[in-house]
Amino acid sequence: MLNFEFCSPTRFLFGRNAEEKTGEMIKKYGGTKVLIHYGGGSVIRSGLLERVKGSLEKEGIPSVELGGVQPNPRSGLVYQGIDLCRREGVDFVLAVGGGSVIDSAKAIATGVLAEGDFWEYWEKKTPVRNALPIGTVLTLPAAGSEASPNSVITNEKTLIKRGTAGDALRPRFSVLNPELTYTLPAWQTASGASDIIAHILERYFTNTQEVEVTDRLCEALLLTMIKQTPRVIADPKCYEARANIMWTGTLAHNNVVGVGREQDWATHAIEHELSALYDVTHGAGLAVLFPAWMEKALIHDPKRFATMATRIFGIPNDGDDLRTGRKGIQAWREFFKSIGMPENLRSLGVREEDFEYMANRLLLKNDGTLGNFIKLTPKDVVEIYKSCY
Amino acid sequence: MLNFEFCSPTRFLFGRNAEEKTGEMIKKYGGTKVLIHYGGGSVIRSGLLERVKGSLEKEGIPSVELGGVQPNPRSGLVYQGIDLCRREGVDFVLAVGGGSVIDSAKAIATGVLAEGDFWEYWEKKTPVRNALPIGTVLTLPAAGSEASPNSVITNEKTLIKRGTAGDALRPRFSVLNPELTYTLPAWQTASGASDIIAHILERYFTNTQEVEVTDRLCEALLLTMIKQTPRVIADPKCYEARANIMWTGTLAHNNVVGVGREQDWATHAIEHELSALYDVTHGAGLAVLFPAWMEKALIHDPKRFATMATRIFGIPNDGDDLRTGRKGIQAWREFFKSIGMPENLRSLGVREEDFEYMANRLLLKNDGTLGNFIKLTPKDVVEIYKSCY
Repeated sequence: MLNFEFCSPTRFLFGRNAEEKTGEMIKKYGGTKVLIHYGGGSVIRSGLLERVKGSLEKEGIPSVELGGVQPNPRSGLVYQGIDLCRREGVDFVLAVGGGSVIDSAKAIATGVLAEGDFWEYWEKKTPVRNALPIGTVLTLPAAGSEASPNSVITNEKTLIKRGTAGDALRPRFSVLNPELTYTLPAWQTASGASDIIAHILERYFTNTQEVEVTDRLCEALLLTMIKQTPRVIADPKCYEARANIMWTGTLAHNNVVGVGREQDWATHAIEHELSALYDVTHGAGLAVLFPAWMEKALIHDPKRFATMATRIFGIPNDGDDLRTGRKGIQAWREFFKSIGMPENLRSLGVREEDFEYMANRLLLKNDGTLGNFIKLTPKDVVEIYKSCY
Repeated sequence: MLNFEFCSPTRFLFGRNAEEKTGEMIKKYGGTKVLIHYGGGSVIRSGLLERVKGSLEKEGIPSVELGGVQPNPRSGLVYQGIDLCRREGVDFVLAVGGGSVIDSAKAIATGVLAEGDFWEYWEKKTPVRNALPIGTVLTLPAAGSEASPNSVITNEKTLIKRGTAGDALRPRFSVLNPELTYTLPAWQTASGASDIIAHILERYFTNTQEVEVTDRLCEALLLTMIKQTPRVIADPKCYEARANIMWTGTLAHNNVVGVGREQDWATHAIEHELSALYDVTHGAGLAVLFPAWMEKALIHDPKRFATMATRIFGIPNDGDDLRTGRKGIQAWREFFKSIGMPENLRSLGVREEDFEYMANRLLLKNDGTLGNFIKLTPKDVVEIYKSCY
């Protein structure tokens, strides 16, 4: 096990009607003037925005609003938010929505206190040490941003999508009410689930030896996802399945299951290029790419893949790790297909002629590669794109 | 899944030499004058106390010391610590030791700021809302007190052992260096492991339905414990096994695997009577009592016991949950025996004639029972004592 430092100080309020405590929480964490940040009209139509505002009013906390966050959130709205916060003297940013809204809120919270351009932190992955306090009311379990120190933004001018991190970006509190996810369309539910699964797999595939506790915890979350996701696809108002997925989504990315081990994250980077260029739904891109990445990685550590196949899908090991591992990868393909995810990049609107362009835009490490479990060159990435085209 | 609120803000510094950061952490969390609290001479002999003091000196933080905490920590030393802190103007309490030292430190941190007697909070289980900030350097993975909001103290005059909890008792930081546990005798290692296992089992046995994510997480930690504990018993300096156990011990009791579900905690209460009266090592008492409690609880939910048997010990379910579940209970007995834990109360020095006295001292709920998974009367508790005598 590697040395590590871990601190996940976010207060989680989980369950029915939890959003009623939003105002109380903002008060507890010192907010006196709030930016309420959200996406499209769904939080208006559902009445959630009104309920949240009512909760703030009850505590006498004034607020301003900025809606319009899009999936794969853009830098333009972030700049608008920063201006608005400075003009209005906002000291607390509340995100009401999914990962895109939360990530945009984190960028605004950073930019308000930054001397220069917020984008500098994202482009260079500079850790954020100072930001306005953030709270979230989550409506889509997926990105894990409600607990993570991460944020991913797309630069509107260059269409470059980059993520940064920093303790200052961990929300002070997050409201997790599974009922708020009842109205999610099947596509978004399944894409969110795929993103959650990918967050676990990026941690699961490691070269670090002797990390049984986090191996087992990753497997626990994966087992939960493969059982609960089909249930909500079949029955969108199944509270219990929604609840299990929501808490799994949070634990999948606050790093409690990833500490002490080298992590990979190549597949996320490879997917970010798709999302930046074609506005592909992040989770859907991951559902196509992860099995393709696994095929590439299988030979590097067949035993780990065989273990995954057995522990997650109950596939008996016939003594041939490579064959068993391959069955596990196929099981993931079938799983993603069963929840309505696409099977190839073509159906996501990706064009073959862009593969090299995308691969060449990746932010590589100093040694010119991507990832840790296996080290990918841009050429390898093109091969991965091709293999799932 | 039940509604819940969860916040585990402790910063964990895990790995080799992590204790070197103690001074830096105290500074980060605002400590300017520190009480260093510890137990017997082992932290002196090992040089740990000197290293920790060196780390404080490096940051220019003055400190006073109070050693002498015993297993099953007593109220007398707590009062001494409170007096010392008030006299010396201490504003941060650092525990260097195991759960007993940390629990004693939590009681001191409470008492310094309390208007009345600290014991009031423990006797009546009143939540502690105000206490001096606490840090820990852990030397024994067991009680989970390095992350939990809990503390258990024995009143010296009455020999009543009681626990309380409160967010204010969550340590600001905890140093977890597996190497510091190399010198633990096998008995303490195994007792600590049994305590960790018991913390998971108290959460695992629940009547709450549809809590797959926390079920699976509990199982992940149990699987880790049954594999790693025998390794450290055989090879006390096995860093990797020590590391896996140490992180498991923390997660077993910061409640991340217990949220959203009713928990039991009867076995802990039943054991506390043994520890209070005979100074039995807590984990050793639990290793004897838990299988006995399970036998009593088996009929209440045979399916859950059968699931445990299959998932933890790989015992195939032959279609008879009761029989499979019983095999699982027997597997726990054999496991505890294999790591050197006693098989009955007699070998712990407990006297049969005290059973009724102990059962009648238990703090019962308003309905006159103990526990949640099954509800035990004092008569039931006597039967449990007898069944493992």
